[in-house]
Amino acid sequence: MGRPVLTAEILAVGSELLGLHRLDTNSLFLTGRLNDIGIDIRVKTVVSDDAQILGAVLTEALGRADVVITTGGLGPTADDLTREAVAAVLNLPLEEDARVLAAIQARFERRRIRMPEANRRQAAVPRGATVIANSAGTAPGLWIEAGEKVVVLLPGPPRELEPMFDASVWPRLQALSAGRRVRRRVIRVAGRPESLVEDIAHPIYAPLSTGSTPIETTILASPGLIELHVSARGSDIVAMDDALDRAVAALAAALEPAVVSVDGRPLEVVVGDALRERGWRVGVAESCTAGLVLGRLTEVPGSSGWVVGGVVAYANDVKRSELDVPADLLAAHGAVSEPVAQAMAAGVRARLGAEVGVAVTGIAGPGGGSDAKPVGTVVIAVTTPHAATVRTFLFLGDRPMIRTQSVVAALDMVRRGV
Amino acid sequence: MGRPVLTAEILAVGSELLGLHRLDTNSLFLTGRLNDIGIDIRVKTVVSDDAQILGAVLTEALGRADVVITTGGLGPTADDLTREAVAAVLNLPLEEDARVLAAIQARFERRRIRMPEANRRQAAVPRGATVIANSAGTAPGLWIEAGEKVVVLLPGPPRELEPMFDASVWPRLQALSAGRRVRRRVIRVAGRPESLVEDIAHPIYAPLSTGSTPIETTILASPGLIELHVSARGSDIVAMDDALDRAVAALAAALEPAVVSVDGRPLEVVVGDALRERGWRVGVAESCTAGLVLGRLTEVPGSSGWVVGGVVAYANDVKRSELDVPADLLAAHGAVSEPVAQAMAAGVRARLGAEVGVAVTGIAGPGGGSDAKPVGTVVIAVTTPHAATVRTFLFLGDRPMIRTQSVVAALDMVRRGV
Repeated sequence: MGRPVLTAEILAVGSELLGLHRLDTNSLFLTGRLNDIGIDIRVKTVVSDDAQILGAVLTEALGRADVVITTGGLGPTADDLTREAVAAVLNLPLEEDARVLAAIQARFERRRIRMPEANRRQAAVPRGATVIANSAGTAPGLWIEAGEKVVVLLPGPPRELEPMFDASVWPRLQALSAGRRVRRRVIRVAGRPESLVEDIAHPIYAPLSTGSTPIETTILASPGLIELHVSARGSDIVAMDDALDRAVAALAAALEPAVVSVDGRPLEVVVGDALRERGWRVGVAESCTAGLVLGRLTEVPGSSGWVVGGVVAYANDVKRSELDVPADLLAAHGAVSEPVAQAMAAGVRARLGAEVGVAVTGIAGPGGGSDAKPVGTVVIAVTTPHAATVRTFLFLGDRPMIRTQSVVAALDMVRRGV
Repeated sequence: MGRPVLTAEILAVGSELLGLHRLDTNSLFLTGRLNDIGIDIRVKTVVSDDAQILGAVLTEALGRADVVITTGGLGPTADDLTREAVAAVLNLPLEEDARVLAAIQARFERRRIRMPEANRRQAAVPRGATVIANSAGTAPGLWIEAGEKVVVLLPGPPRELEPMFDASVWPRLQALSAGRRVRRRVIRVAGRPESLVEDIAHPIYAPLSTGSTPIETTILASPGLIELHVSARGSDIVAMDDALDRAVAALAAALEPAVVSVDGRPLEVVVGDALRERGWRVGVAESCTAGLVLGRLTEVPGSSGWVVGGVVAYANDVKRSELDVPADLLAAHGAVSEPVAQAMAAGVRARLGAEVGVAVTGIAGPGGGSDAKPVGTVVIAVTTPHAATVRTFLFLGDRPMIRTQSVVAALDMVRRGV
């Protein structure tokens, strides 16, 4: 088969996906997988459980795209209509598949339940379709070739859809797309505004987009962290990887020392790896972030090897009693000040016997700001066996944004200091 | 105009919305607003910047729905095609609107920039359309009535779309939908599995769905917390509110004492309100959650009034030195045990001078489990001036899920204990 550029549409079926509380997350999974093999997605649709609308949207999608993937609507109940709608649009009779029925019955028997009659519908297969086994549920997937077009029916629950797609659908689609692949790298940058990263990176990545192996670059911003996604598409993996290596090296050199990683590692993993390499452990004293720095560090499995713990000193009393911050320092400079941050870092380091002490104290708002120290003022100190550093930041945004930027800035100061 | 039940489709335009990194969040905003006035959404579509596909999808949508709302594609660049596509589908000529052009030029003049010629396109208006002012950007919105149908064009950036929608589109749609409204309540329940909540709630809410004022109930689960969304739709607000009051009272009575709130307050706010009412302050000793309990409590603005702080005792040394947990207790029972949790709660309470002490110690995995204490074993203790309670939980799921359930369970024990 092997067509050069395939286009796909994704059709998520289910009225619940049109409300406020269930999002169609399958399409993101599918987008990632399809992009990886160079299949372009042109349209994504979410439709309610309405046979007529479903049929109309399906007909339209088949008129435009090479591949149509549906998710959901394969269950046993009356509002599960995808199988019937696809069969009707493709004008294929539905026939009961004895092996599918036996598999569904066996699944119920293992749970010592008699198969409800409703589940018999799930064994109906459009004539000529290939059945895709479902290791995690009763609804099998279906692969249907209709002329030049392919329709793939997948169940809605991600834990059923994802393994099924990877095991049985992806290899078939990859064969169709004739070996085209997309290779992708991520450069993570901390503590630089998006516009500055763009100003630095644009002169480097713009010419690469028209080279012999074109490189595509996208910049994504979250509070305190910027990601550059750099990708190439084609079938010559060696040339693509080579071009990507050069692009990443050039971009990283221009963005140093703000580059956190070029290999996909999140900031907290980079910090943990650096600490483990040194044989150091970290203790954290937090005021405005109130545990979120430690919460983030300990997201990493095995972080007990390099995290000792810490003190959340929300009240000033606690800064004195648990971190040994001198009362006169607090009185003279205020809790949000460089001397107090340094004393907190030194205090938590000494108290907990950690090699690295980190302190965060600031005003996350909405209250508590002043002209001299407005909301968003955050002081971060890091003390290691070699050096002590302290910085005052002014973060913009609301309370959660200020706290998130503080966490990122604290981890990045540890990264640079270790 | 006043039709009884209006249907709508949302069409998000933009190739970037079909990738992995930008989601169409506008449709959630629009869904909430449309549901509030009883407008049903049947289909949501995301389309790439392709005039042909956009035209085809728009034609289909207009064939099905009363109202079609497009978002995005109103910018000044060549791939902004929504205006032209809508005008073509509706067969309306585009005419330059002098007032729109003047407003765009004025916007640039305020920034002392000459309007780029490209922006002139944004002043093109399909004949007969109503222009909707954009207070936050250059692209105006458009309201177009075509026979019985309404097409609304909105810009893509949420900070432009949202105020524009609320000021100018919502009132017009509300008039169309003839005063129909949806009223909604939320019951939050902690520490009960979804299936148990369903078993208890179903006999109560099922009959209500067919009463004289039908009540619709949806159950949503997140780790450790279940939400029941109870809603009524119609135009008799008094009858709807009365029916909702009775439904919420009946459901809450059946689900006590697991009900966190029936007024929309999140768990951490309920805990804070209870502490403030008592005049108590809380200190937290965390091991496996490593700061996340305090991080969650301090999401609440003003939480410094009832949070003292805490100790993150990730290493056992810290449990001894900073929380005064006796070494023999640790040796005899292990760090994840009821005696140690109780000693941690008492220790943090005494050290920090808090009225309420909370301790969380457990095994979040993936490593560290044993036959006796498998991954997911979490012990939580709460000590108040009146009582000391301790409970051992076994949470299922991965590391983040176990930690989230631990946070919710700890907050819920404080809620019940204060």
